[in-house]
Amino acid sequence: MVHPEVARVADDIASMETRGAATIADAVADALATQAREGDAADPEAFRAGMRTAARRLYDTRPTAVSLPNALRYVLNGMEGGSVEALRRSVVERATAFREDLDRAQSRLGEIGAGRLRDGDTVMTHCHSTDAMAVMEAAVADGKSLSAVVKETRPRNQGHITAEVLADLGVDVTLVVDNAAHRYLDEVDHVLVGADAVAADGSVVNKVGTSGLAVSARDRGVPIVVAAGTIKLDPATLTGRAVEIEQRDESEVIDPETRADIGDIAVANPAFDVTPPRHVDAIVTERGQFPPESVVTLMRELYGEADEPWREPSQ
Amino acid sequence: MVHPEVARVADDIASMETRGAATIADAVADALATQAREGDAADPEAFRAGMRTAARRLYDTRPTAVSLPNALRYVLNGMEGGSVEALRRSVVERATAFREDLDRAQSRLGEIGAGRLRDGDTVMTHCHSTDAMAVMEAAVADGKSLSAVVKETRPRNQGHITAEVLADLGVDVTLVVDNAAHRYLDEVDHVLVGADAVAADGSVVNKVGTSGLAVSARDRGVPIVVAAGTIKLDPATLTGRAVEIEQRDESEVIDPETRADIGDIAVANPAFDVTPPRHVDAIVTERGQFPPESVVTLMRELYGEADEPWREPSQ
Amino acid sequence: MVHPEVARVADDIASMETRGAATIADAVADALATQAREGDAADPEAFRAGMRTAARRLYDTRPTAVSLPNALRYVLNGMEGGSVEALRRSVVERATAFREDLDRAQSRLGEIGAGRLRDGDTVMTHCHSTDAMAVMEAAVADGKSLSAVVKETRPRNQGHITAEVLADLGVDVTLVVDNAAHRYLDEVDHVLVGADAVAADGSVVNKVGTSGLAVSARDRGVPIVVAAGTIKLDPATLTGRAVEIEQRDESEVIDPETRADIGDIAVANPAFDVTPPRHVDAIVTERGQFPPESVVTLMRELYGEADEPWREPSQ
Amino acid sequence: MVHPEVARVADDIASMETRGAATIADAVADALATQAREGDAADPEAFRAGMRTAARRLYDTRPTAVSLPNALRYVLNGMEGGSVEALRRSVVERATAFREDLDRAQSRLGEIGAGRLRDGDTVMTHCHSTDAMAVMEAAVADGKSLSAVVKETRPRNQGHITAEVLADLGVDVTLVVDNAAHRYLDEVDHVLVGADAVAADGSVVNKVGTSGLAVSARDRGVPIVVAAGTIKLDPATLTGRAVEIEQRDESEVIDPETRADIGDIAVANPAFDVTPPRHVDAIVTERGQFPPESVVTLMRELYGEADEPWREPSQ
Amino acid sequence: MVHPEVARVADDIASMETRGAATIADAVADALATQAREGDAADPEAFRAGMRTAARRLYDTRPTAVSLPNALRYVLNGMEGGSVEALRRSVVERATAFREDLDRAQSRLGEIGAGRLRDGDTVMTHCHSTDAMAVMEAAVADGKSLSAVVKETRPRNQGHITAEVLADLGVDVTLVVDNAAHRYLDEVDHVLVGADAVAADGSVVNKVGTSGLAVSARDRGVPIVVAAGTIKLDPATLTGRAVEIEQRDESEVIDPETRADIGDIAVANPAFDVTPPRHVDAIVTERGQFPPESVVTLMRELYGEADEPWREPSQ
Amino acid sequence: MVHPEVARVADDIASMETRGAATIADAVADALATQAREGDAADPEAFRAGMRTAARRLYDTRPTAVSLPNALRYVLNGMEGGSVEALRRSVVERATAFREDLDRAQSRLGEIGAGRLRDGDTVMTHCHSTDAMAVMEAAVADGKSLSAVVKETRPRNQGHITAEVLADLGVDVTLVVDNAAHRYLDEVDHVLVGADAVAADGSVVNKVGTSGLAVSARDRGVPIVVAAGTIKLDPATLTGRAVEIEQRDESEVIDPETRADIGDIAVANPAFDVTPPRHVDAIVTERGQFPPESVVTLMRELYGEADEPWREPSQ
Repeated sequence: MVHPEVARVADDIASMETRGAATIADAVADALATQAREGDAADPEAFRAGMRTAARRLYDTRPTAVSLPNALRYVLNGMEGGSVEALRRSVVERATAFREDLDRAQSRLGEIGAGRLRDGDTVMTHCHSTDAMAVMEAAVADGKSLSAVVKETRPRNQGHITAEVLADLGVDVTLVVDNAAHRYLDEVDHVLVGADAVAADGSVVNKVGTSGLAVSARDRGVPIVVAAGTIKLDPATLTGRAVEIEQRDESEVIDPETRADIGDIAVANPAFDVTPPRHVDAIVTERGQFPPESVVTLMRELYGEADEPWREPSQ
Repeated sequence: MVHPEVARVADDIASMETRGAATIADAVADALATQAREGDAADPEAFRAGMRTAARRLYDTRPTAVSLPNALRYVLNGMEGGSVEALRRSVVERATAFREDLDRAQSRLGEIGAGRLRDGDTVMTHCHSTDAMAVMEAAVADGKSLSAVVKETRPRNQGHITAEVLADLGVDVTLVVDNAAHRYLDEVDHVLVGADAVAADGSVVNKVGTSGLAVSARDRGVPIVVAAGTIKLDPATLTGRAVEIEQRDESEVIDPETRADIGDIAVANPAFDVTPPRHVDAIVTERGQFPPESVVTLMRELYGEADEPWREPSQ
Repeated sequence: MVHPEVARVADDIASMETRGAATIADAVADALATQAREGDAADPEAFRAGMRTAARRLYDTRPTAVSLPNALRYVLNGMEGGSVEALRRSVVERATAFREDLDRAQSRLGEIGAGRLRDGDTVMTHCHSTDAMAVMEAAVADGKSLSAVVKETRPRNQGHITAEVLADLGVDVTLVVDNAAHRYLDEVDHVLVGADAVAADGSVVNKVGTSGLAVSARDRGVPIVVAAGTIKLDPATLTGRAVEIEQRDESEVIDPETRADIGDIAVANPAFDVTPPRHVDAIVTERGQFPPESVVTLMRELYGEADEPWREPSQ
Repeated sequence: MVHPEVARVADDIASMETRGAATIADAVADALATQAREGDAADPEAFRAGMRTAARRLYDTRPTAVSLPNALRYVLNGMEGGSVEALRRSVVERATAFREDLDRAQSRLGEIGAGRLRDGDTVMTHCHSTDAMAVMEAAVADGKSLSAVVKETRPRNQGHITAEVLADLGVDVTLVVDNAAHRYLDEVDHVLVGADAVAADGSVVNKVGTSGLAVSARDRGVPIVVAAGTIKLDPATLTGRAVEIEQRDESEVIDPETRADIGDIAVANPAFDVTPPRHVDAIVTERGQFPPESVVTLMRELYGEADEPWREPSQ
Repeated sequence: MVHPEVARVADDIASMETRGAATIADAVADALATQAREGDAADPEAFRAGMRTAARRLYDTRPTAVSLPNALRYVLNGMEGGSVEALRRSVVERATAFREDLDRAQSRLGEIGAGRLRDGDTVMTHCHSTDAMAVMEAAVADGKSLSAVVKETRPRNQGHITAEVLADLGVDVTLVVDNAAHRYLDEVDHVLVGADAVAADGSVVNKVGTSGLAVSARDRGVPIVVAAGTIKLDPATLTGRAVEIEQRDESEVIDPETRADIGDIAVANPAFDVTPPRHVDAIVTERGQFPPESVVTLMRELYGEADEPWREPSQ
Repeated sequence: MVHPEVARVADDIASMETRGAATIADAVADALATQAREGDAADPEAFRAGMRTAARRLYDTRPTAVSLPNALRYVLNGMEGGSVEALRRSVVERATAFREDLDRAQSRLGEIGAGRLRDGDTVMTHCHSTDAMAVMEAAVADGKSLSAVVKETRPRNQGHITAEVLADLGVDVTLVVDNAAHRYLDEVDHVLVGADAVAADGSVVNKVGTSGLAVSARDRGVPIVVAAGTIKLDPATLTGRAVEIEQRDESEVIDPETRADIGDIAVANPAFDVTPPRHVDAIVTERGQFPPESVVTLMRELYGEADEPWREPSQ
């Protein structure tokens, strides 16, 4: 009952061949459209069941990603009609709309966020975020001259990528170790970071170090802006799912020989941390900029009340 | 007029053969005692001039160190008497007292600080400080079982030394990147750091990253304790000398090849930062523990009002 | 025109025979359904007038309760149709939906809130809240081992009930006086309380002592969660109604003899206080968890813009 | 194609003959109704084009006002129908509704805000705001006895107008210089101000001095309430438009002779400043009172996602 | 070698016949004077040894009291002279001075603290403190009319004593449960409490509930004043002694029957908590009022650097 | 018994011919020296009585000034000796030392404070303070290029004087109304103000508006420095004297006609306000820079424990 194309997309996601929040979401929406268009359901009930089965097939590949279930929710929450034909049309249209929005999302988000930056401003970054880079790019495209203090972002030094992207844009870049952030906040006008997920209670899950940076920014009176497309909103948190913080391999933190020399110690290497909404000034999405406390409203608009269209509806 | 031993000590300091705040202070006090004991001053005036010259010779080797001028101040502020003999005796006694105090300072400081730690507590450290280690050691010696979350402390990873020392003491050590500090503060009972200098306004100069850690600790309700022997008090700040923050070589932050790949960026690598007293709960010295706002009183007691006994007295 | 069953329900509420926010709301929705089903309205206009009269009869029994007018609003805001039959059907369906939701609300809320608690966590409670208990129960049902620091909650010591409920659940309970709360917050992972009402501006009305506890929790970096079903949202506050704080009898605070011994003093015994949204991390309802600043959106969705369906519509 | 009445209204706005946020919005809505009613469009497409042209004509007169584009958005976002007749009717009805709402808005807002004030309270004001005055007036009309500490509000001393209005209402007024505000906050129960605009991120643009007053109020534990009708919500900020702060003439700050005497100095005279939502307790509108973080939801409900109905729809 | 009077005083302290910080201190100073005056030491060395032995005898009765070792320190730190006669005189004089100071301390402290209260002010109290009462009494004696919000102070309701004392003074008293404190802080001008001990780091040890009250007072912008005679300063904390928090009997919190009904729970009943200096505005002693961060200076002046004159001097 | 010169000096102070904190202090010390030198006391007792009488004569002219009693305390606290000659000498020497210190105080203070300013910094000022100006002047003399944002400081616009002084120094000056301070703090590196008095609890009495500015500076992360010579320390506050805040004439705030137009209002015009030490980073005196919490130590060193040498010593 599941279209072979759906299976192929699912396999590619499972094997990590298809990667990245937006790429996955796009592939998933496309697969649902294919299922709708080319499925062979005889009646509305069968059509719905087929879509549900396809959705579950896709969902099960990486249930902890945020964008994947969001694509499923968005497309299938728009499924409506009394005939197979009407249902099919609604799904295809919804998938198309989703993919078009997704396609424009980053540049729209960039333009919206760029409105916060003024000519001559200095921005501090943490980790590497394409959404945050879109903001910088749009501001530069508006003719604004910008400087950046780029945190290297241990343990994986994604700040090096950020530094390279910004230098290419013509931004005046200063690279610092993470420990130097507080000291340089006095010279900074904005802290700009991305997000891995935004929870229903307005908290922001992002690369470890974000929560401390946000506290520092409050202490120094520097506003903190999170650039995050709406596929990062995590409606599962609405119904209480806790965000799990991945512990990564200790070899990212210390090489095995050094560790052996030190003696009997443990190494903890959490990938993310959680920043409460009171330490964030705005979340910039492609639908506008919002206080973090209001993002839950957008989340429910786009994805329903944490619907799970990949499950049998309960009685 | 300057005793050859004074010159030798000065040379060793200048050549960095004699290093470390306490080692330098000890050598300097000893050199002054030698000058007093073995100098050939004919009258009190000549004696004082000789001591002053010796002091200047020593001072000029590393005027930005904190412990060196403190040793000079402590010893020579106690110089008094109407005869060469009396002057000589006062200097020798004062030098001896200073050296004896110095010798016991770290273990005394450790015992005092250990009083703040309870059995079962978890301590977060930043950088490596022998004063902070003395506190941990004394607490372990008291039979307290301790855990530690050790920040690696980029760029020079002095946290590795701390981890090793603590593991040797039997402390349960978890090493983390600096970015993970805020996240782990929830599980921490104390932040314990050392100091490079403590200023008259109560602010603490320490390894870069301390000021941000202190802000994070306040946000999480965790007390922050600075372990710093009194030779770290900097009386020159009393009369307005600003603490200069050394900028170290960028190769500590990024290797040259990576940097070349990234493109045209700057790298900033400040060695220290400044934590205001309102973010510190106590400064533990060998003379007791003090709120940071009160350390100026101790500073004036020990070293006078920023006296400079290596200079000609002004009229 | 008012059905006898409506009158009976109203009398039971007035006489306090029917008590408790959920019980009242359930009875009221049922009474409206009876009025709709069994009323004898000849035309839509008469039907609407009859419903309005029934609503007013019910409303007038305890206008300061929050759940009672919410039940009226929810059911009657859904009344629509051009014929008596359609109107009747809409009211009955809406009442049924409301009662079903209400029936499941507490367990749903419990599951949602339980997502915030991790195995091994310690929770501090204030007063006794069945919504908060539902959260604890769901977490225990998930297999999580929990501890609780239970404030006794003077003057009426509802903490004793909480302690008993939690001990029955197998939670490790420590009872403390309210004064000891700040001291024990260092050992606590969450503060979990209920609410008597939640206002449009996001502030939480709850048993006196909540506002101080929330301030203490912020100081100690402990998140504070409010468990409150949506019948606790008070839409009248949207249009400016101030929440009145009941003053209860002084004999709850001090026995008459002691008071007489003390001499000429006053006793104040407010039942509730008001906690601003900036001191609350999340409000957990059966519709999901929300930042307190966003609850007004849910309030308007469920109950309209503070409609008063028990009044004549104004021109 | 643009009706002469539209042109006349536009000219009056451009020449400042028509002034004030509400007056402009009312005139604009009326002009759109005239255009709809009396325009000569032959088909729906022409009708829409005519409305758009009229809107642009009006919009271009003062694009930085907030209420003007809001009137356009509100009226034209409600334009719908398949025939010219239906379109016409929808516009006229929407314009009528907008104007009626506007007419009642200030008194409704006043009643809502008055709910926050208790008999005997003291209110501190900044600048002059008719919305804030409506709150005071409604509270006085409710029989509450009020006092006010009125900041003179340099440079233009609009506090004098506020003082006069409040004295006329029978409020007990104390006028103070702006510098005395912090000192008198101890005796104040509420800070009550208006707004020039409210942005999507919840920040409030108001007469310069508001942001500092709000910080002071937080420090003293005094709640700060912003009275602002919904025409002050600025949906353009949703898509990133930065609020520009007008710099006014320096002669408002210092007379030319004094300035000449002083020597070579600059004078800065910004008209407004921006207060972040975390320093505001509630925004009182005619649609209810909201936490500032939730106003974006109301903004999107009323005006869409920053629609610009005066522009050609993009493809 | 120990005078019988010393033994008697020691016994009375041990048996709790002599109680209260000031009463104990007075008895101890008197006993030392007796030992000095009537001891039979043959030479200075023997005199000193006798004093030391007497001191140890007294010290060992209640080593955790603060005032007892302070009396020993104050009197014996002043012991000086080359002959038995001179030593004797110095001890007797010092003991006399101590006792005279002690005798006047509370009324002096009251006058100093009264300077902070203005006519018409409202004061919130916690527990019962004779030092705090002295402040109120002196202010009333100055003709100031005062009101008080008195916290009952569970578990032992010492607030009842405070209420009675204040009512007798003519203060307008309102008694509240501890939970109501935050709510009433809006109507309060000062929080005034006593102290059981003040530590070298400026923190205040006082009846449990003080630390939370101080946090609440900061949130509401109300200054918090601690009234504490200098015998409450604890110099042992200078050298790191942690203040131990007594756990009192659980029967103070809950009667055994109720407890048995509740089931298997623990009860914690700490007598004190610790308030950090940043939450206290001033400490009022009989030597003047001080910021809590400066009290360590007074502590060292009066009692030396935590001398322990009851021990053999170390080499 | 009082020397005619003392009487003359007293009259000049009383008639305001001698004005300014430093000028008064200098005249008073000189008068005491004259009294000592030229008085005709026959014995030590008479000498002391004469000095006391002279002191009282001077003190009574303006008992609320701070510098006048400080000059008396400083000079007479140093009076010692067994003979008239010795007493005389001690007073004259002490008066001379005081006057010499005073003479150099402002430039010393300036040099000390200048150490806090870096080349290129921007400073915000409030009111006009010669101590603060000395800091700016010393920094400029060090070759530092500075900018200043000068608050006009209503009601008396002393900011105009500050602007003129700074412009003359070559500082780049921007004048703003007081309301604009918060907005410009983002561009400011230091807030620098003077003081009318510094109290024993570390609070700073200064021109009204300082306390709000300090709160704003904390919110924006800008350090606040108070420049205040030691004659501004007010030892009377040590023993509880409350600082009285002068209410000045309302005509400074509003001209009589405007006031009459407004109607029945009151005008409050306090000259000063009180900033707590937690909102101040450092107090710069000619004896060094101190945390405000430590100034009480300096106060007691210089002036004793609030001695009143103009009164009969109590028994």
